[in-house]
Amino acid sequence: MRKGIDTELFLQVKKQQWIREGEQILLALSGGADSMYLLYFLKELQNHLSFSLRAMHVQHGIRGDEAVEDATFSRQQAELYQVPFLEYTCSVPDYAEENKLGIEEAARTLRYKALKEEALRWQAESGRKTKIALAHHMDDQAETILFHLIRGAGFSGISGMKAEDLLSEAETTLLRPLLSLRKEEILKRLEELGIPYREDSTNRDKSYARNYLRLEILPALEKINAGAVKHLLEAAELFSETEAYFQEKATEWIKRYGERKESSTGKCISLSIPQLKKENALFRREIYKEAIFLLRGNTTEFGKLHYHGIDRLLKRGNGGRLSLPKGVKAEVEQKRLLLEKF
Amino acid sequence: MRKGIDTELFLQVKKQQWIREGEQILLALSGGADSMYLLYFLKELQNHLSFSLRAMHVQHGIRGDEAVEDATFSRQQAELYQVPFLEYTCSVPDYAEENKLGIEEAARTLRYKALKEEALRWQAESGRKTKIALAHHMDDQAETILFHLIRGAGFSGISGMKAEDLLSEAETTLLRPLLSLRKEEILKRLEELGIPYREDSTNRDKSYARNYLRLEILPALEKINAGAVKHLLEAAELFSETEAYFQEKATEWIKRYGERKESSTGKCISLSIPQLKKENALFRREIYKEAIFLLRGNTTEFGKLHYHGIDRLLKRGNGGRLSLPKGVKAEVEQKRLLLEKF
Repeated sequence: MRKGIDTELFLQVKKQQWIREGEQILLALSGGADSMYLLYFLKELQNHLSFSLRAMHVQHGIRGDEAVEDATFSRQQAELYQVPFLEYTCSVPDYAEENKLGIEEAARTLRYKALKEEALRWQAESGRKTKIALAHHMDDQAETILFHLIRGAGFSGISGMKAEDLLSEAETTLLRPLLSLRKEEILKRLEELGIPYREDSTNRDKSYARNYLRLEILPALEKINAGAVKHLLEAAELFSETEAYFQEKATEWIKRYGERKESSTGKCISLSIPQLKKENALFRREIYKEAIFLLRGNTTEFGKLHYHGIDRLLKRGNGGRLSLPKGVKAEVEQKRLLLEKF
Repeated sequence: MRKGIDTELFLQVKKQQWIREGEQILLALSGGADSMYLLYFLKELQNHLSFSLRAMHVQHGIRGDEAVEDATFSRQQAELYQVPFLEYTCSVPDYAEENKLGIEEAARTLRYKALKEEALRWQAESGRKTKIALAHHMDDQAETILFHLIRGAGFSGISGMKAEDLLSEAETTLLRPLLSLRKEEILKRLEELGIPYREDSTNRDKSYARNYLRLEILPALEKINAGAVKHLLEAAELFSETEAYFQEKATEWIKRYGERKESSTGKCISLSIPQLKKENALFRREIYKEAIFLLRGNTTEFGKLHYHGIDRLLKRGNGGRLSLPKGVKAEVEQKRLLLEKF
């Protein structure tokens, strides 16, 4: 594997240490071009690095015969590569209805859930670090950034997918080694190698928002500026760096001007109001966000409006209170702003 | 003017103090819907606030008879509103060729240039603060943000147009009071009021990148997410706040750890390398940007690559040198990074 994108990818995996000696990789194998290339690549990589590889196919139960054929194809290919294969079947339409989600989002949620569960099972079984390998590429990344940008999101949303994504709650890691490759590079390489793949007809269905973005909007943007996708990715990198910067600064700030209390009944973080008032409004919101993260382990269901709400308490002074999502409360007590979760 | 968008706009102008008693407003009047609404609004505003108003029409010399008719229409309307009218004619095709610009960009550059010159002339004549009023609205803003995002830009580019833009070099201010209004709101209000306007055929020409973005891409994005335009604007606001935050922090940093020297032969800013090394890479680049701004009054022709280049000098140590655009040089001397312009 000393040719074109294989080499590029090999050097990246090595440099970033995405996969280390002795680890276990669970590959999400749909049978499509991207995951077939990743299967080929990881198999080749095993000649240079010792790690375990398994492939898992998630059957969403939405495309009838076509889906069954995808599963069969994936199984056959995995066998050909001598990679242990697992199949998981779920019912996306039921899940979508129960959770009031669109089909696309329900499918993604269930797929990630199944992969995480399997990775944790395998990890528990062997006691070895297990990572999930996903075949997202640069075009998927641009689609994701644009999707979040028009849906409304802070820096974390518009930073795109991470090549190495540590999922704290799941004690596992998502790897996306192909993010620096264009879809067309992958297709070209598969053709050179004579590797077959299946085309998922739902990937061409423009009634799905993300497909429409990928198939219509992004090519149109590239007509206006040939570097559109690359520039979107550079912007996302800037957002990602900015998010990390603010997180770091907010953590430092809380260590310095905040106090954490924990009791059997709950957690509380108190922040110095005079010190908060010295900071810029944007940074104050980052401090609140970090405090919520420290209280809850995540900031799901919290957004700009909540952080603005907390900020308004500073002006209201002693006694001001605010109820926030997930049982979090904000309160002003003398010169401290208290964020509590009971 | 106590109805719908008129009132909304009136309250905004008052709150933001975009126009103050005794100032002079030079309105860019194309004769199109947006500038016709702004003409109507400013004229109404004069009933509540005492300021001088003039209208200026810039004829680009690219649409033959149609352009002449636009100019005539604009003149007649200004006369109807009893607003002094000026016409300025230029040749966009020649300027575009000379400066290797696209027609759209050349037209914009010349238009701004003519408006600024006229504003400064009027200001010098009366000694009163003169501002240029432009009729950009929310759809134009979304188009601008997307355009810069796919063209590749830092926070300043993707922050969009400012409602109040102080042009330091030109000693004048650009006002864009309509940025919070959608195009369709403006059209609806003009219809209610029975105000006529001209349609510029080049605004419908989809071979122009920005028109294509506005007429094709943005409506497509709004089909995917009805709030797409609003969310793009919110993102731009976040970028704008972030840019301001970094600028403020970088200025503080330079005051603390930088030294400015000025002589008859040039300017120099020296920065403490040990202190630079304590900072995050993203913030270091912001420091370099601010230093360049202090040296030159602007950062035109400087971009990410240059700031990365300067940053690499830190590792090279004593004696490292780099030539940058516009005669700026970077150099490491002992434990200081020198940015110089001779």
